[in-house]
Amino acid sequence: MQNRRAAAATRVQEHLIEVLAPFGDSAVAEGMRYATSGGKRVRALLVMESARLHKVAGERAIWPAAGIEAMHAYSLVHDDLPCMDDDDMRRGQPTVHVKWDEATAVLVGDALQSLAFELVSHPAGAETSTARANLCFDLARAAGGQGMVLGQALDIAAETASSPLTLEEITHLQAGKTGALIEWSATCGAVMAGANADSLRAYAHALGLAFQIQDDVIDVTGSVEAAGKAVGKDAAAGKATFVSLLGLDAAKTRAADLVDQACDALSEYGKDAETLQQIARFVIARKT
Amino acid sequence: MQNRRAAAATRVQEHLIEVLAPFGDSAVAEGMRYATSGGKRVRALLVMESARLHKVAGERAIWPAAGIEAMHAYSLVHDDLPCMDDDDMRRGQPTVHVKWDEATAVLVGDALQSLAFELVSHPAGAETSTARANLCFDLARAAGGQGMVLGQALDIAAETASSPLTLEEITHLQAGKTGALIEWSATCGAVMAGANADSLRAYAHALGLAFQIQDDVIDVTGSVEAAGKAVGKDAAAGKATFVSLLGLDAAKTRAADLVDQACDALSEYGKDAETLQQIARFVIARKT
Repeated sequence: MQNRRAAAATRVQEHLIEVLAPFGDSAVAEGMRYATSGGKRVRALLVMESARLHKVAGERAIWPAAGIEAMHAYSLVHDDLPCMDDDDMRRGQPTVHVKWDEATAVLVGDALQSLAFELVSHPAGAETSTARANLCFDLARAAGGQGMVLGQALDIAAETASSPLTLEEITHLQAGKTGALIEWSATCGAVMAGANADSLRAYAHALGLAFQIQDDVIDVTGSVEAAGKAVGKDAAAGKATFVSLLGLDAAKTRAADLVDQACDALSEYGKDAETLQQIARFVIARKT
Repeated sequence: MQNRRAAAATRVQEHLIEVLAPFGDSAVAEGMRYATSGGKRVRALLVMESARLHKVAGERAIWPAAGIEAMHAYSLVHDDLPCMDDDDMRRGQPTVHVKWDEATAVLVGDALQSLAFELVSHPAGAETSTARANLCFDLARAAGGQGMVLGQALDIAAETASSPLTLEEITHLQAGKTGALIEWSATCGAVMAGANADSLRAYAHALGLAFQIQDDVIDVTGSVEAAGKAVGKDAAAGKATFVSLLGLDAAKTRAADLVDQACDALSEYGKDAETLQQIARFVIARKT
């Protein structure tokens, strides 16, 4: 799996560099390149692997794979802004508004969201127009005010709420903030092939929640060096997290159970789904 | 034309209210409703009229018409942010970051950009998947780092540049900032119908530039009451504009010439293009 992940990461990185080449050398273009460098590329790998599972060529799948990484990068650039989470470090590097300025960071995020839709709807991507149109429509819903942005808004509202969130509220928040893009990525291959996406969706639901629980675990147990970003912020801010609500051990157990559920959801695919199952296990093994 | 414009404006407003109903009553959802209220609806009218010209049903065209207004609204919310143009008033009302706060304004803009792509790719919009996919692809390119965002970035860079922009540079800036969405709107009907969009594109090129020249004219000659936003800002900031470069009278003449060009570009459509030609004339007659 690590080989496939490394290969997908390299390929996505090269593809993003290539599509951004005509954007010139303005601060916004440089910021777009900077913000789309590095990262775990989990979402891209989910796209590539769900595509492989449905016999979609890698040279086509690379377009939505790069697109979802552009979308993810936009969300990080805006989340890091002073008026949002106010983070100075990301992936061990200064955040975009620190390296440039706030105006550039707003515009870099805005342009990366547009780029995501450009890549996802690109004629060289999904073979049929129906798939291109559906990928766009699904991504718009996953990213917007009923998906990822809603999750972020609930997260900000929680900081000034009079009482900490309940487990149900945090689960709802995370379903938007992290789960929606994970689900889009994992179902992408089926949508590209015009196939039924139910099993991949069940896999993604469990995986997305496990992913966020593990993020909370890392926030408590991780080091700044390993994570490449600030840790311990949620606990310091008194924010409710899966760890604060469940306890550290129970949170780890819950994440492990969800990973088992995710793997089971793919049983119909047999051995072909091995990499996706390994991705799920990687999610709770990672330290960053 | 005013009747059609009023009808299109009402219809777009109702459609946006309808599609935003399921978004709930969070600050972000309320901000999205607030930011998409009012305005001249020129872009929506261009979509509706270019669709009518190509025999596309109004009930289909209303989806991309509402989509382009969501896109335009997102750009205004982010442009008004303190780190960008820092405007407190828009359409005679407090801007989103003044009425709520900066974080909400960033998220409202982000969610409105997603909403634009959701509406443009909606299955109830363009009849064919090809048109839905192409509208998304074209809109992503028009809005992104080689289109509208590029124009905004050039505009910000101009504020700290050592020398004022030349006429060529301002024309390039405005082609991105205003022209790209105008062109998408005016060609939308042809793309929906799978028809040749060359004439509409020529119309849009001339119209977009006339539109921006008139904006500069209003900045010099308008009143805050009529414009519903700050005026005289560009001159006060010593920014180069079409008016500062050409002089007021020559700028008005240039805008009028461009409107003539825009109208001529539609001659093949005969009487059917009358409303689009009236829109072009309205652009230089408007005071806001």
